Amino acid sequence: MNQDYITPDQWSIKEDGFEIDNVQSSESLFSIGNGSMGQRANFEETYTGPSFQGSYIGGVYYPDKTRVGWWKNGYPEYFSKVLNAPNWIGINVMVNDETLDLFSCKKIDKFSRELNMKEGWLGRSFEATLQNDTIVKVNVKRFLSLEHEELGAIKYDITPLNTKAKITYQPYLDSGITNQDTNWDDQFWQTTYKEVDQNQGFIRSHTLKTFYEVCSFMESKVFLNSKELSTQGESLQKEMEVSISFSEYVAKGSTFSIHKFAGYTTSLNHDKTELISAAKSILKMAADKGFDTLLQSQKEAWDKIWQMSDITIEGDVKAQQGIRFNIFQLNQTYTGTDHRLNIGPKGFTGEKYGGSTYWDTEAYCIPFYMATKDQHVARNLLKYRYNHLGKAIENAEKLGFSNGAALYPMVTMDGEESHNEWEITFEEIHRNGAIAYAIFNYHRFTDDYSYIQEMGLEVLIAIARFWHQRSTFSKPKDKYVILGVTGPNEYENNVNNNWYTNYIAKWCIEYAVENIRKVEKEFKDDYGRIFQKTGLTTTEVDDMLKVAENMYFPYSEEHGVYLQQEGFLDKEMVKVDDLDKNLRPINQNWSWDRILRSPYIKQADTLQGFYFFEHHFKTEDLEKHFDFYEPFTVHESSLSPCVHSIQAALLGRMEQAYSFYLRTSRLDLDDYNKEVKEGCHITSMAGTWMSIVEGFGGMRVKNDQLHFSPKIPKEWRSYSFKVNFRNHILKVNVSHDRTEFTLEKGEALAVDLDGKTIEVA
Amino acid sequence: MNQDYITPDQWSIKEDGFEIDNVQSSESLFSIGNGSMGQRANFEETYTGPSFQGSYIGGVYYPDKTRVGWWKNGYPEYFSKVLNAPNWIGINVMVNDETLDLFSCKKIDKFSRELNMKEGWLGRSFEATLQNDTIVKVNVKRFLSLEHEELGAIKYDITPLNTKAKITYQPYLDSGITNQDTNWDDQFWQTTYKEVDQNQGFIRSHTLKTFYEVCSFMESKVFLNSKELSTQGESLQKEMEVSISFSEYVAKGSTFSIHKFAGYTTSLNHDKTELISAAKSILKMAADKGFDTLLQSQKEAWDKIWQMSDITIEGDVKAQQGIRFNIFQLNQTYTGTDHRLNIGPKGFTGEKYGGSTYWDTEAYCIPFYMATKDQHVARNLLKYRYNHLGKAIENAEKLGFSNGAALYPMVTMDGEESHNEWEITFEEIHRNGAIAYAIFNYHRFTDDYSYIQEMGLEVLIAIARFWHQRSTFSKPKDKYVILGVTGPNEYENNVNNNWYTNYIAKWCIEYAVENIRKVEKEFKDDYGRIFQKTGLTTTEVDDMLKVAENMYFPYSEEHGVYLQQEGFLDKEMVKVDDLDKNLRPINQNWSWDRILRSPYIKQADTLQGFYFFEHHFKTEDLEKHFDFYEPFTVHESSLSPCVHSIQAALLGRMEQAYSFYLRTSRLDLDDYNKEVKEGCHITSMAGTWMSIVEGFGGMRVKNDQLHFSPKIPKEWRSYSFKVNFRNHILKVNVSHDRTEFTLEKGEALAVDLDGKTIEVA
Repeated sequence: MNQDYITPDQWSIKEDGFEIDNVQSSESLFSIGNGSMGQRANFEETYTGPSFQGSYIGGVYYPDKTRVGWWKNGYPEYFSKVLNAPNWIGINVMVNDETLDLFSCKKIDKFSRELNMKEGWLGRSFEATLQNDTIVKVNVKRFLSLEHEELGAIKYDITPLNTKAKITYQPYLDSGITNQDTNWDDQFWQTTYKEVDQNQGFIRSHTLKTFYEVCSFMESKVFLNSKELSTQGESLQKEMEVSISFSEYVAKGSTFSIHKFAGYTTSLNHDKTELISAAKSILKMAADKGFDTLLQSQKEAWDKIWQMSDITIEGDVKAQQGIRFNIFQLNQTYTGTDHRLNIGPKGFTGEKYGGSTYWDTEAYCIPFYMATKDQHVARNLLKYRYNHLGKAIENAEKLGFSNGAALYPMVTMDGEESHNEWEITFEEIHRNGAIAYAIFNYHRFTDDYSYIQEMGLEVLIAIARFWHQRSTFSKPKDKYVILGVTGPNEYENNVNNNWYTNYIAKWCIEYAVENIRKVEKEFKDDYGRIFQKTGLTTTEVDDMLKVAENMYFPYSEEHGVYLQQEGFLDKEMVKVDDLDKNLRPINQNWSWDRILRSPYIKQADTLQGFYFFEHHFKTEDLEKHFDFYEPFTVHESSLSPCVHSIQAALLGRMEQAYSFYLRTSRLDLDDYNKEVKEGCHITSMAGTWMSIVEGFGGMRVKNDQLHFSPKIPKEWRSYSFKVNFRNHILKVNVSHDRTEFTLEKGEALAVDLDGKTIEVA
Repeated sequence: MNQDYITPDQWSIKEDGFEIDNVQSSESLFSIGNGSMGQRANFEETYTGPSFQGSYIGGVYYPDKTRVGWWKNGYPEYFSKVLNAPNWIGINVMVNDETLDLFSCKKIDKFSRELNMKEGWLGRSFEATLQNDTIVKVNVKRFLSLEHEELGAIKYDITPLNTKAKITYQPYLDSGITNQDTNWDDQFWQTTYKEVDQNQGFIRSHTLKTFYEVCSFMESKVFLNSKELSTQGESLQKEMEVSISFSEYVAKGSTFSIHKFAGYTTSLNHDKTELISAAKSILKMAADKGFDTLLQSQKEAWDKIWQMSDITIEGDVKAQQGIRFNIFQLNQTYTGTDHRLNIGPKGFTGEKYGGSTYWDTEAYCIPFYMATKDQHVARNLLKYRYNHLGKAIENAEKLGFSNGAALYPMVTMDGEESHNEWEITFEEIHRNGAIAYAIFNYHRFTDDYSYIQEMGLEVLIAIARFWHQRSTFSKPKDKYVILGVTGPNEYENNVNNNWYTNYIAKWCIEYAVENIRKVEKEFKDDYGRIFQKTGLTTTEVDDMLKVAENMYFPYSEEHGVYLQQEGFLDKEMVKVDDLDKNLRPINQNWSWDRILRSPYIKQADTLQGFYFFEHHFKTEDLEKHFDFYEPFTVHESSLSPCVHSIQAALLGRMEQAYSFYLRTSRLDLDDYNKEVKEGCHITSMAGTWMSIVEGFGGMRVKNDQLHFSPKIPKEWRSYSFKVNFRNHILKVNVSHDRTEFTLEKGEALAVDLDGKTIEVA
């Protein structure tokens, strides 16, 4: 844990007191989003202190020319960057002609911030003494509408406390924004049009290279003591900015307010010629409804989300706050309504990592969306990969594969590979396996075969072809081997026969063939189409199966475990506990070669395989592997603690499970990795959900039935969660002495509780 | 082979006819240097076509801020860049007020270029028809003085052929130069002072960050039909340029000439305040002597070099030209007089690779300088590493080593590591071995123990400590292993137990201990000093030896060969001959992962070990390893063919040896690697020398005696070379029917010829 300034609370993220050093971390933690856009919790008014500005539009990106020290053949030309978008939250505030700026004012009292997760808004209040000795009280509330995804709203109140004061609001739009993350200091946006009158403003700009057209828009109303004023603003234009100025002499104790409605219309959703008219319609709707009505809808929309996705924890407010924060951020990042979007590792909370899609989506996020949303949301995530199949095939061709083999990118925005470290881009190929696994997982959970039959089988075939071609025959081993890979544990590069990779490769081939045969038998038309499109032959299928059947798995007789990769035991096997604490995190203290030749594991690798394929192994096997590998695991990936929490729970090691749970659920709130100011770890938040539902709840799907074997940390009184299983909504409430199932929707359902079948009605 | 426009000639590199496409390649091939400075063969007059400008000063570099895609702990902050220096060769030429420019003139006839290696000058002549229809004949000669290392001289003659013409010469100095190779488009030079009068000009500038002060200087004289004119020039200044203009109306058939003396004085060799006065002294000397006298001295100086280092080949002009080109370039690059300098991979012929010192120096260059120069030259190269020992220890500390262990840098200018690819910088650690090997090699050849006793032992101890700490104990193998390395074959990264690395590590420890004991016994005072400085203990020595004695070497019983690294045989063992030719060179056609998992070898790796330690193995062993590894070797490193040529010769495979010889000796002349325009491969040129002397000549030093087992390619009538062995200069002449030894200096010498001792007097 690196920080603990966040006040524990059931439903809100709260900060009390103003600390310059916490500003950037809070900008990440208090981020808001509505799936279609999102923004860091930057202040509306001027702030001249250290700050990381960020406003993001889902699907709008910039292909930044690759910059590397040493070029390798096959590197992509571009890295798709998450793009800082025009700023529409800005409201310059002047108090007696002095700019209100928390960095430069004399004194700040009663500063507090709240991210109200229940209702979906961000609030802030403080009393500031300016250099001119005016004391003002400020209250701000802001949200991004779930109902109207292009719209956000801000309510900004100022009350002079010690004197009458002239207050000026200058709401503005600014398209002169830059990225912190840029390879060549390129300009990413070009402003093409500005329009501003007494209460509305518009800026049109487009991204360079990708030519996404964006209209940023705003409209403001001002109020005195909640009574709307008819004041017309004074419009101003700068090169890449439009603003409107509203001034008022405000009596001591009176409150001058501005309601700003703003947002983006983009060419993703509108004809390019209609962006401004679309913006005007939205503004009209917003102005008609007004801030309070819009906020009311926002609360209702979030209420609906929480109805289904809330997890309650009794008796442990930090654990409760943690899980809600995770669920809230996931819902802010991705709502599943747009199949062009995906779940970026930082969501709308920062620029880092670029791209929007990693294997995290398939390996960690699908289960959450599958169980807490309608199944079409998870299906959209699968469809996203189907839509990128052509590019994945191209990507494989660039690396020398042929005949329709696909290698899905490590990082992507539009299907093209973005990443450029050879040991990752070219070698962390296990990602292909997760994409096939998600198809299996989706079908297992939903029983919806239509995706496989319509789209998924093509994906499975292309992935199987990749593994087939990527495996080579080793004469000395008389087995197929996969050489030169990076497994999920990125603290090993270019290793041979990573067990996880080999295992999932074998499985991918077998699963593809199983489905080829099923579709051939049961869906002749689909089979004909796919057969024609892929040119699959029985010889190829036989050859593939030969590879799968003869795959090599490194194994230690001495330890009775599969080896993470060949030669793993040649390392100096010093356990993490015996390592000098000053050396950790090793990724901040050791040169890369030292990390690579150490036995230390960044995140579940062999154990990731035992997580995915738990049903292939006995619990004793898992236990052996957990006992062998966990002591070497440094958990320096945000994706590590959740898998270990689930497995520790399964093995009945509740203290360990609980400690991993806290680490995953409060990773950002407590800033374990000392980097939250760069943004939140969005994708690992779905792992937090899994660590409760699959870990403590022990939920599994076996033979078309939900199975549970609930456990509960001693720190908790009870916890509950809901799952949407095949049109049944089942609520599960676990306390120390019993587990309650309530069916909230759907016909009676048989579930398995610790090996016994129970009928829930 | 990629080009064949160079005319075969015994003593010169010649090009006839002007081809725009060859300009940049010729700029590399016709480069001149004098060990202390050097330059590409750029034209003196304006040339607006594609050209790669380059003028370099030994020891003057710029630490360019590292730029990588993904930072790893331990990367150096800077990459030492070879620095393009102010241009002093420039002479703008106007003919009837039209700028002479071979890129834009109407017609070029009789263009020829000559790099006269015997005499050490670069010449060029042509007839150009300008746009204004004036036809001029031009003759240029240029050289960098071996005698006066800060001085260069140019003689430029113009003869109007079809009409009287006004000819203007504008000799200039230009410090507004840039690097092609720059990470951040930094400016590398700052100009601080300019001075110009009617015939002299000076520009002072300094490098940014490193603050090397350089005074570029020039003086010009003009002649009509070889008679000096008293014309005073008209001086001109621009921001970073000074020039002097001389005009003359020249009758048809008359020749107007300019002699330009120019060069650099630098703060490396002078007090900063005296650079201009030093320049003036040089100019005075040059003007007094005049061009012809200076050229005469140049011929004599080169004659002296050739006296000792020439290799003659009868009956094969291309082979003769190749070896002389290699010997000439080596002597242009490094003369051994300045122990601060070293042999950059591109010498003074380009910017690529940066740095000046690679393991190439110790592994490939030392033997050439040792045998063709006084032994102090090789000793200076060893001393260079001793001077960098402190930085090598610091470098090892950055990577987690301690107690005075040293890791010499992969690439350096001043002792600090410059390189930034983790798989090279951190893992290509075998370089440390070559540095120890050079000490052994120097002592074996010269019998001079003073270097070891005074300096070398400290280096050996620090290197042995590194290997001791870098080796770890493998329980399953019950041996010491070296994990995560890149061997000499850079087409394998992060492998375990690279045989070459393990072997040289073991040897380094044993050789260090052997010398620790020798110095302890024979040089008590030195031992005391070193003992105190290094804090060496007997326990440490015992521990080291334990590691050396128990080092693991991967071995294949089936093939009877050591394995390049563990798991090598798991690859798809398709030989190079069975590989589709379109796929080669693989480094231009394959993505990096594909190269890594292939069995293809960039350059001698296991065979490099057999080259260094030939005396440890039987010829049958070498044969087995050569037969096993060569068929997988693609020779895509310039350092590959020479070692294979030597070994093929030893194994009596003369056709193969000859083909490797041609490839190494004419690598640049015939542009095998399609990249000569970036500069020549200087360090591998020393390998060419070895391939004749050690390969065909079979020269070895055994038991303080020279051994020869000469062979001769069937294409040659005879060949001869000289070696300076312990103050004997021995000339060896080999023809098909006999070998002649002539002692040119020193007392009678016993040499071994094919196993028989011969007394040479």
